[in-house]
Amino acid sequence: MNIEKKVLLTIFGATGDLAKRKLYPSLFGLFKKGILREHFAVIGTARRPWEHETLREVVLESIKDDVENEEFAEKFASHFYYQPHDVQDSEHYRTLKQLGDTLEERYQTEGNQVFYLAMSPNFFGTIALHLKSENIVTEHGYSRLIIEKPFGTDLETATELNEALSNTFTEEQIYRIDHYLGKEMIQNVSAIRFANIIFESIWNKDYIDNIQITFAEAIGVEDRGGYYDGSGALRDMVQNHILQVLSLLAMEPPKKFAEEEIRKEKIKAFQAIHKYTEDEALRYFIPGQYTAGEINNERFIGYREEPNVPEDSLTETFVAGAFFIDNERWDGVPFYIRTGKRLVEKGTRINVVFKTSPQLLTSEECGTNVEPNVLTIYIQPTEGFSLSLNGKEMGQDFNLSPVALSYRHDSEFLGNSPEAYEKLLHDTLDGNSSNFSHWEEVKRSWELIDVIKKAWTNHHTELYTYPARTMGPMESYELLERNGHEWIWQPEKWYIERKQLRCDF
Amino acid sequence: MNIEKKVLLTIFGATGDLAKRKLYPSLFGLFKKGILREHFAVIGTARRPWEHETLREVVLESIKDDVENEEFAEKFASHFYYQPHDVQDSEHYRTLKQLGDTLEERYQTEGNQVFYLAMSPNFFGTIALHLKSENIVTEHGYSRLIIEKPFGTDLETATELNEALSNTFTEEQIYRIDHYLGKEMIQNVSAIRFANIIFESIWNKDYIDNIQITFAEAIGVEDRGGYYDGSGALRDMVQNHILQVLSLLAMEPPKKFAEEEIRKEKIKAFQAIHKYTEDEALRYFIPGQYTAGEINNERFIGYREEPNVPEDSLTETFVAGAFFIDNERWDGVPFYIRTGKRLVEKGTRINVVFKTSPQLLTSEECGTNVEPNVLTIYIQPTEGFSLSLNGKEMGQDFNLSPVALSYRHDSEFLGNSPEAYEKLLHDTLDGNSSNFSHWEEVKRSWELIDVIKKAWTNHHTELYTYPARTMGPMESYELLERNGHEWIWQPEKWYIERKQLRCDF
Repeated sequence: MNIEKKVLLTIFGATGDLAKRKLYPSLFGLFKKGILREHFAVIGTARRPWEHETLREVVLESIKDDVENEEFAEKFASHFYYQPHDVQDSEHYRTLKQLGDTLEERYQTEGNQVFYLAMSPNFFGTIALHLKSENIVTEHGYSRLIIEKPFGTDLETATELNEALSNTFTEEQIYRIDHYLGKEMIQNVSAIRFANIIFESIWNKDYIDNIQITFAEAIGVEDRGGYYDGSGALRDMVQNHILQVLSLLAMEPPKKFAEEEIRKEKIKAFQAIHKYTEDEALRYFIPGQYTAGEINNERFIGYREEPNVPEDSLTETFVAGAFFIDNERWDGVPFYIRTGKRLVEKGTRINVVFKTSPQLLTSEECGTNVEPNVLTIYIQPTEGFSLSLNGKEMGQDFNLSPVALSYRHDSEFLGNSPEAYEKLLHDTLDGNSSNFSHWEEVKRSWELIDVIKKAWTNHHTELYTYPARTMGPMESYELLERNGHEWIWQPEKWYIERKQLRCDF
Repeated sequence: MNIEKKVLLTIFGATGDLAKRKLYPSLFGLFKKGILREHFAVIGTARRPWEHETLREVVLESIKDDVENEEFAEKFASHFYYQPHDVQDSEHYRTLKQLGDTLEERYQTEGNQVFYLAMSPNFFGTIALHLKSENIVTEHGYSRLIIEKPFGTDLETATELNEALSNTFTEEQIYRIDHYLGKEMIQNVSAIRFANIIFESIWNKDYIDNIQITFAEAIGVEDRGGYYDGSGALRDMVQNHILQVLSLLAMEPPKKFAEEEIRKEKIKAFQAIHKYTEDEALRYFIPGQYTAGEINNERFIGYREEPNVPEDSLTETFVAGAFFIDNERWDGVPFYIRTGKRLVEKGTRINVVFKTSPQLLTSEECGTNVEPNVLTIYIQPTEGFSLSLNGKEMGQDFNLSPVALSYRHDSEFLGNSPEAYEKLLHDTLDGNSSNFSHWEEVKRSWELIDVIKKAWTNHHTELYTYPARTMGPMESYELLERNGHEWIWQPEKWYIERKQLRCDF
């Protein structure tokens, strides 16, 4: 089934980190599988005055851990060409076109082109305009554009950007990458929901109490303090990754499992997410920022002490909140979300918390507890599922005790899984945009996020602090407790102890 | 919570195998927990002319693997007394009463008595009568009777037996033991069904396609050929164990989780099991008998070659069948059952097979299959659950592949679990008969079984043969195939190969 693709790929930002860490290894992955083989060429562009050979060395360096056969790797690298490029200079685009035409002829790529913008979004508009004005984008073969986040910084800038791109590319030609959508376990969400009657039949407000999405990072801002301080957790994580995951959890079943139908239902899910008033936003969303802290005797500095971060920064490094969805299926069910830097540990998880069984066994706070059934989807670094059930406790009496059925990928199995970027590049070559963000989704997500951001600014909302390497401020727990809920994933010792304390009198 | 019980226990059949293998170790288990401590005594009776000391030595021998402290064990054994006894001789009952009175006085057992009939059911009636006529059963304290299977050999004999017992004991005083009901995982069936909304909410004909109960033995008839040949698999396993398990799977939720409510619903479930006409019975039940066979180069003789089995025996060593339940919840859902000797491996399992998800992903016989969700409850020798789901297959394409979430007890955990007999003895001391068979259940089960037996006899039904150490005759597979089903647990190689063959053209 691995049919060779014919394509000319132009990467803007070819000297950058993303290109080296993700794109070249992913392209090599496709080369090994024969998806790319003879009829492809890659043009790398950036400002630096590299030669073709420089780029090829960088490419070989980036894939070196994956090479078994030197000759094969060099064959791969020989398809790479470098063109120094100033994105604002029309002359440079003409040179680029000449190189492109030569390579199309040489590799018989049939006019198929993919443009990958792996660089600052400031230049996306300019590039798109020139690609059209200099006739690089043609009607001959297909032309597709892959762009990286962030797609704007609010609704206004996103709309401007989209309009700039629209002059050159139709929506169908634009592939807005969200690498989480390339992850195995995210793609598994639809399989789990729609291919298993035991979940499909109860995936609604009658049976689901709440859904929790956690994107936790253990690292701080590292050397990205300057960039991060202008963004914050809400825009960096919630607007894109988290809302995308939420829409997959919330969407209605598509009529059939085909790209267009999925797209349609995902957009409908985004539209149905309740847009808050500023007052509501203040009630349901809280910003946090880490202060100095320690874990296992290792000390960590606070956010305001990080390089390139102003010492009075009000940027949130943590956000917790609840979204609601205005439709029949989800009326009243909170979708809790939580993300932050310098949390206890790294982990992306979804917890679907079912209601407790209504009958028979009453739930007492500290007695024989009927715990809710919880379906956990582990996205990373562990991948897998678990389902917690109530079983009978071993022994004479009929007491309940939780039982976790679980399935985790072993590392051998994982070895066969293509990396997210490779999958998404492959999708692009296939012309399958299911796993990319549609403009309608991006637009709606900014509408939702802007209100929250505005509410915090206009009301001088307090920035709740949390010591580095904890799971965020206390207010994050209180947010759920107000509704009688609690974070299922709560690795902090004090929380577990407090919970036991409540039962000890 | 381990409150000491005061009781005098009289065991009829104290020199037998059951007493040694199960009862003495179980009583020692209760002694170690302090359920039995000071105020108890055990009278062992049988025909042999033993002394108290002989019995005590047998008791000590039977628990020797479990003894850490010799003195403690001897303390336990000192509560045992032996009385040679002919169950038909009234004089002997008077001697027994004298001993009982003495022990009641000595151990202050407050008149509480349990009679355990661990012997041939032929004598149950006689014993019961004498216990009354000789005033051994009194109104002082409680009197409870524990009896072992078989409870009759058909409805007529069971009714006779029950009437004989009824002269002395009320239904509430009779504890008909079915040791499967003492097993952790059988007791877990109710926990799983009623304490987990994800199962409780879909436990009906709309979501469950069929349920499969397999009681497989690897052993043959061993030295019980004589007894077994007069019984057969239907009476030996289906009438009691299998129908009990079926009723737990099928019963309506009790109003509350209390003995009386559970009893009521279990009896209702028994009543609702469809009683076949002879024609129906022939369609839905098939008998099998093992012939010589081999597995892993080990050869096994056929049933008719076994010691004490007539060489033209028509006794079934295997039975497969389907029960249906005439109520709203289960209309049309087959409860397939299967049990036999000399099957591939030993194992008791329940498979709850859910319907396949209706939408989206069509089930093609040999294409991307949507397998049904299956909840498996492993009763023995493994204990645990698994739930098979459809997940996304690793890789670029969106194909489904089965994923099994599982939970098995580790042996350490199992170590804490009391043996079934210990639990059931404990239940009896507690006066809790939830885990015993009620007369209404026994009666109904004979009504159901008698028809099948009669149908086979009257119609000279063919006895389907199967080689020793296979999963039974082909007809067992065909029984399910007729309805578009298949045995989920099918460890036989040829079956798996045949299935693949179907997909290879």
